[in-house]
Amino acid sequence: MTDQNASIRRGAEDPSLGYLRIATEESWCPPELVRMWEELIDAGRNADPAFESYVNFFLRSSSQWPKYVSERLQDLGSLRLEDMDATGIDRQVIALNSPGTQIFADAATATSVATMANDVLAEGCRAHPDRFSGLTAVAPQDPHAAAEEIRRGHDQLGLCGVILNSHTNGEYFSDPKFWPILEAAEALDTPIYLHPNWPPPSMIQPFLEVALEGAMYGYGVETGLHLLRIITSGAFDRFPRLKIVVGHLGEALPFWLYRMDYMHSAYLRGGRNSSVVKPLNRQISDYLKENVWYTTSGMAWEPCIQFCRQVLGSERVLYAMDYPYEVEEEEIRIQDGLALSPAELKAFFQTTAEKVFKIPAAG
Amino acid sequence: MTDQNASIRRGAEDPSLGYLRIATEESWCPPELVRMWEELIDAGRNADPAFESYVNFFLRSSSQWPKYVSERLQDLGSLRLEDMDATGIDRQVIALNSPGTQIFADAATATSVATMANDVLAEGCRAHPDRFSGLTAVAPQDPHAAAEEIRRGHDQLGLCGVILNSHTNGEYFSDPKFWPILEAAEALDTPIYLHPNWPPPSMIQPFLEVALEGAMYGYGVETGLHLLRIITSGAFDRFPRLKIVVGHLGEALPFWLYRMDYMHSAYLRGGRNSSVVKPLNRQISDYLKENVWYTTSGMAWEPCIQFCRQVLGSERVLYAMDYPYEVEEEEIRIQDGLALSPAELKAFFQTTAEKVFKIPAAG
Repeated sequence: MTDQNASIRRGAEDPSLGYLRIATEESWCPPELVRMWEELIDAGRNADPAFESYVNFFLRSSSQWPKYVSERLQDLGSLRLEDMDATGIDRQVIALNSPGTQIFADAATATSVATMANDVLAEGCRAHPDRFSGLTAVAPQDPHAAAEEIRRGHDQLGLCGVILNSHTNGEYFSDPKFWPILEAAEALDTPIYLHPNWPPPSMIQPFLEVALEGAMYGYGVETGLHLLRIITSGAFDRFPRLKIVVGHLGEALPFWLYRMDYMHSAYLRGGRNSSVVKPLNRQISDYLKENVWYTTSGMAWEPCIQFCRQVLGSERVLYAMDYPYEVEEEEIRIQDGLALSPAELKAFFQTTAEKVFKIPAAG
Repeated sequence: MTDQNASIRRGAEDPSLGYLRIATEESWCPPELVRMWEELIDAGRNADPAFESYVNFFLRSSSQWPKYVSERLQDLGSLRLEDMDATGIDRQVIALNSPGTQIFADAATATSVATMANDVLAEGCRAHPDRFSGLTAVAPQDPHAAAEEIRRGHDQLGLCGVILNSHTNGEYFSDPKFWPILEAAEALDTPIYLHPNWPPPSMIQPFLEVALEGAMYGYGVETGLHLLRIITSGAFDRFPRLKIVVGHLGEALPFWLYRMDYMHSAYLRGGRNSSVVKPLNRQISDYLKENVWYTTSGMAWEPCIQFCRQVLGSERVLYAMDYPYEVEEEEIRIQDGLALSPAELKAFFQTTAEKVFKIPAAG
């Protein structure tokens, strides 16, 4: 029973809490990239209607919510730290805001954005090593350069994983042309965070016409599709130690475990779409239980958290906030209050994240 | 502990079971419509690539699985009854197989197909009143004729609900032009079964290119989108007593209850997509808890069934098989063995269906 009027203190300040809170799906966008996005739209070179709607609302509107988001998104210092203090977050795992580099048609531009963003993010993390960790941004448009950037982020910049903002101009990591990126991540044993993007233009119309393309529904559908495409492509058979982290408790794929397994087997047995549907080494649900971790970004809801722990494995589910889009004290209190043992809560908020992202354990 | 070697007996034959098994998402397609579908494709007048793939596999292939499905789909007599006896199904609630009338561009053709199908189905139900119940097919292409057909099906043919095979040529019931259909269903207090369809051409590409457009994933996404579109359109505020039944445990919308409520409120508070996102009388999850029932077609998986009972209400979840696509004795045994009380099991298999579809209670 938490006192609803008490402020939330960080684990580092309140040892009686028993854990540090590590938030693992937290967004950031360098002001330089905001300007490039705006230029893309102003020059008429953007073909993604959801992207334009996003930029015009969250980065250009002066009304309260977008202004709040935009200021925090571009901060990598005191504003972010103040918010973390106010909501009891000991550490953020910070990633380049969607769609990051992946909106650019030109691979060289996208690659240079990734390099710039990683340099700035690494500097921010070095300035606050106890509070910030960061993921390596990549430009999938040039898979070999992206693999090289993953190695630079890991070996030279001290970054602790890779951010993939779902599809890249309508293309998915089920395509082996992107597999140098998976190969590099597996070789370094560093996780890829599969973060939402809007459905691509080839899919978005029935969502967009009723404003369901984003966090209401489209994000989850598109990101779930991406993860399922990666699994059915056989990528995890080629890279069996590859680690994926996915937000929003798995974008509803945990709900479908039984049906995906059943139908994949039925298709194979029955010869349905036999030119496309391939046998896999494991069942679809096995990959989801053995290669994937699930964060609670935007899903501070005990029944669904417990369902995912039950069907995926209790050690697979970890905390995320979704800063600065969803900053709710109440959501911290809900998750502090989950019906878990002290050891399970510590794993949920702290040690699973330390293990997956290889964050040095704090004192 | 059921003896795995024992045959499954119907509740009507084995009173010790304690309930009749009513299967509520069972498909049928008159041979006349199969021929019309084939003609549509052969004449080059079909623009839906998933439909063509479906017809060519399930209705034209001579290999084992599609042959099994095709024969049963077109039967409304002894073959169907034998299967029901073998799997312990006392009653099927039978509906016109997806996409039914909804693949036709021409409203008059679609309307005539609905009339024909309803006449044949009603005759089949009259021949086996203790075993078959049927839903009224409609052609949404002509909403006023469809409303009239709902009244004919209810008042004259003894049908017990309406089948809607999701989108109609890329259009959704969020569009008020379809609301005469909702109005008729509400006025008669007869439920609309929202059954899957493939994503429309405006959405299907990233699914189709990897054969995920159907039961593997696309069906669920498209049907969930349709239900969410109906809710956010305000249709349930206009028709507050409208009853919807949805299969596959709600096409993953139950997983998203918290996030949909949170984001809909956040959009409204923050002015996001304010020209499209409308205030509603209730929360999104309220409509899903108060106007919608959920069947277990293709989802014979206890963790997910219990999760849905928990978050939607135990009286909202009822049994379905998905005949003739998924005919598995094991799935009956799993659901007979759910950790429910005898009264809850009876509601799950029998009395909830009797209530929702107004099936006269059997002796």
